[in-house]
Amino acid sequence: MDSSSSLYPPPPVPMELHTENREKLLKHLRENLVSSSRPLHGFVLLQGGEEQTRYCTDHEDLFRQESYFAYLFGVREPGFYGAIDVSTGKSILFAPRLPAEYAIWMGEIKTVSHFKEAYMVSMVHYTDEITEVVNNQYTGTGKPVLFLLHGLNTDSKKFSKPAEFEGIEKFEKDLETLHPILTECRVVKSKLELDVIQYANDISSEAHVEVMRKIKPEMKEYQLESIFLHHTYFYGSCRHCSYTCICATGDNSSVLHYGHAAAPNDRTLRDGDMALLDMGGEFHFYASDITCSFPVNGKFTSDQQLIYNAVLDAHDAVISAMKPSVNWVDMHKLAEKIILQALKKGSLLVGDVDEMMVERLGSVFMPHGLGHLMGLDTHDPGGYLKGAVRRAEPGLRSLRTSRDLMDGMVITVEPGCYFIDALLVPAMESPKTSKFFNHEAITKFRGFGGVRIESDLYVTSNGCVNMTKVPRKVEDIEAVMAGAPWPIKKSTYENGRS
Amino acid sequence: MDSSSSLYPPPPVPMELHTENREKLLKHLRENLVSSSRPLHGFVLLQGGEEQTRYCTDHEDLFRQESYFAYLFGVREPGFYGAIDVSTGKSILFAPRLPAEYAIWMGEIKTVSHFKEAYMVSMVHYTDEITEVVNNQYTGTGKPVLFLLHGLNTDSKKFSKPAEFEGIEKFEKDLETLHPILTECRVVKSKLELDVIQYANDISSEAHVEVMRKIKPEMKEYQLESIFLHHTYFYGSCRHCSYTCICATGDNSSVLHYGHAAAPNDRTLRDGDMALLDMGGEFHFYASDITCSFPVNGKFTSDQQLIYNAVLDAHDAVISAMKPSVNWVDMHKLAEKIILQALKKGSLLVGDVDEMMVERLGSVFMPHGLGHLMGLDTHDPGGYLKGAVRRAEPGLRSLRTSRDLMDGMVITVEPGCYFIDALLVPAMESPKTSKFFNHEAITKFRGFGGVRIESDLYVTSNGCVNMTKVPRKVEDIEAVMAGAPWPIKKSTYENGRS
Repeated sequence: MDSSSSLYPPPPVPMELHTENREKLLKHLRENLVSSSRPLHGFVLLQGGEEQTRYCTDHEDLFRQESYFAYLFGVREPGFYGAIDVSTGKSILFAPRLPAEYAIWMGEIKTVSHFKEAYMVSMVHYTDEITEVVNNQYTGTGKPVLFLLHGLNTDSKKFSKPAEFEGIEKFEKDLETLHPILTECRVVKSKLELDVIQYANDISSEAHVEVMRKIKPEMKEYQLESIFLHHTYFYGSCRHCSYTCICATGDNSSVLHYGHAAAPNDRTLRDGDMALLDMGGEFHFYASDITCSFPVNGKFTSDQQLIYNAVLDAHDAVISAMKPSVNWVDMHKLAEKIILQALKKGSLLVGDVDEMMVERLGSVFMPHGLGHLMGLDTHDPGGYLKGAVRRAEPGLRSLRTSRDLMDGMVITVEPGCYFIDALLVPAMESPKTSKFFNHEAITKFRGFGGVRIESDLYVTSNGCVNMTKVPRKVEDIEAVMAGAPWPIKKSTYENGRS
Repeated sequence: MDSSSSLYPPPPVPMELHTENREKLLKHLRENLVSSSRPLHGFVLLQGGEEQTRYCTDHEDLFRQESYFAYLFGVREPGFYGAIDVSTGKSILFAPRLPAEYAIWMGEIKTVSHFKEAYMVSMVHYTDEITEVVNNQYTGTGKPVLFLLHGLNTDSKKFSKPAEFEGIEKFEKDLETLHPILTECRVVKSKLELDVIQYANDISSEAHVEVMRKIKPEMKEYQLESIFLHHTYFYGSCRHCSYTCICATGDNSSVLHYGHAAAPNDRTLRDGDMALLDMGGEFHFYASDITCSFPVNGKFTSDQQLIYNAVLDAHDAVISAMKPSVNWVDMHKLAEKIILQALKKGSLLVGDVDEMMVERLGSVFMPHGLGHLMGLDTHDPGGYLKGAVRRAEPGLRSLRTSRDLMDGMVITVEPGCYFIDALLVPAMESPKTSKFFNHEAITKFRGFGGVRIESDLYVTSNGCVNMTKVPRKVEDIEAVMAGAPWPIKKSTYENGRS
């Protein structure tokens, strides 16, 4: 059923990635301490994730490391702690002390020297030795300060959980300093991080193409998910997905977060449907986040082309405009404007586009934000700096960041155009916006669903690079779905559609 | 890469399965109340599972309903409560009241009448109406009693979480009565439950065969997992696995719970390895749990045959002996004895097998229990009735149940024989057991790994039926791995190896 090979074998991941991450944190943390005239002493101390069981049972969910901890230490096992000595820069991992029985049930009990070598840290001890080891390492005076992770995730509105361990009361806790600095480190990606994200993109792009080649009417949506997961795992070793796959066809494609347990990708595909597939594999903790939209039967109708090209034009225009200092809210508005212009050109809308912009008509068709920072989490933290205020207007309030772009940021560009009754009907009835609609033409599109085109971009010193390598032009999609090879020779999407 | 079809399309699941489960609970609960002279009033009240996010992020783990709630109501969506009126037998679901925005992001907001029809309950209200609705339904005197779920899971040692909601203080709580009765309902499966478990077995058996046909040296262990997951999802709609796949090859096959994040199925397969693959798909909440062991290159060596047939003989002997009233500890010992006899015959052990049994030598080669109850959880609850004492001896203390078999139980039969240094070396050195070993012969097997053969059985009025349909005989495995069709015509495993 699947193609018999992949162009993208999983590459080795150098642990220098995490060494560099620690050095970067240390540099910024020390700068912060110096600037506030604090001593260069103390320890960054993080607690890694623990294995979870399902409800009251012994069913163990597959463990996935907490992302801040993964950033600094790259540890894949549960139950660890990690510390960085601010004074010396030494890194210390604390491994759980496992009972002898572990060897029988769970596997080899690895030595501290195994972990020291595997994770390239200065030393490894056991978690029951944290207090003792940290105190021994301390060369300052008074109680050693622990810089613990405590701060708001602006997407979930939840707070990260500071490390807890027996004996923590013997230390002075600093809950304020670390989170913003470490979060900002994560915002700007290193070369080694970009390599990993690029691989997640490569294998996931290829898996999307695999789905394009296999899709046909009468399949179930979840079968597309299964093809994708299999391709990224079998060929790419991606055991985790970055997020639950959205395999939305027909009218479901207007449900922005389709695919969860209450809407579980279980519709049967029909000839004539559009498919909106938002799926990304995770490689060595790092995400990819890719959406392709195309007709299930491999051939765009003129209506489908109209909406698709409106979104593709927005996608390409944003990519062409992206570079450091460009503001993301402006990019969102640029995408909206291009979509509204296209809908006007397609006779779905009438009137002045600038007036439509004032009335926020763009958010009727694209209620979500244009894109979000991406890295160890699909929705990577750092979208709103401390004190930044979220915009209140429809559409803009859904933005996961309002920042200016910076060299090294990785951000998704994912404009969309959806026909959502819950938004469309009120807008068509509202005295403020009714006049913009060609009511008869729009009515024809109710039930169409939606189109989203999503690529992962990294910002360079003077522009950006598209890490996602899937067919985007209508003719390329149709050719690939009909069996043409991909990537097409002499074509490149590295810099968006030219 | 995969076969292009399946013999097992997913069947429709009648909601009568859950109606019957509720009726069964009601019958047993009423009997209990009558026998203790309590009034036939009050409400069973359960809280379903909630969606979880990963650490502080907005990453949503794919929701899977809590099993007791799934048993009674079959609800796949998060955030529900369910009640059963002990007096009238009426069933009430309480759905979360979703904000209008849900329709844009998550999908259609389903009406209470949709849920009433879909889940075949007497009525549906919102979760903010629990107190009012339950009070309105109540026809008894005094505070209505709520029978809440609170009790020990004897595998995890955790307690189930009783329902909580605003206004619960207006009711009298009974935390004792429900759990043992509901757990015991789950122990004995209905015809409709068996049908679902049979389907999970059918598609998972087929997926195991698929892996047998595709396996070859130089593959990675996780590629076997990927083939299995893809087959059960693509063809069987099994979005969840019953448990994390154990894909252990070479020496890893002696690690009983290999495959988790710290031992993540990432070894490269070698010519000459044994593979031990313990994988089961979940269908409509119900588990399958199947282990196949075979040589990666498709051809058993004589050493591999020796160990494999020792385990297969134990597997078949247990199945032949199983029927109501047979005690599970006796079955465990039967399996041990047959394995020890085979190892003696194969010149790995010397001396009297009964003496070996007295010294618990079987547990050196099979440290885990022979099998466990299976249903909505892989390790289904009810293994130890209240007051039952777990045996202290090696091997026996690992048993997840010590009960007598009953008509309608579903239980795994999973004998194994492993060469685990951590157990073997001390036993070979112990003055009590050293004499039983042919030290030279055993040494040859260190690094062999292990063999496990696991089938899912249901107990009938006079025997048992094997629900698992995979090749088990050496010659059948070799034939299927060489491309022979499966199932082989005229062969049946319904009653074990004959």
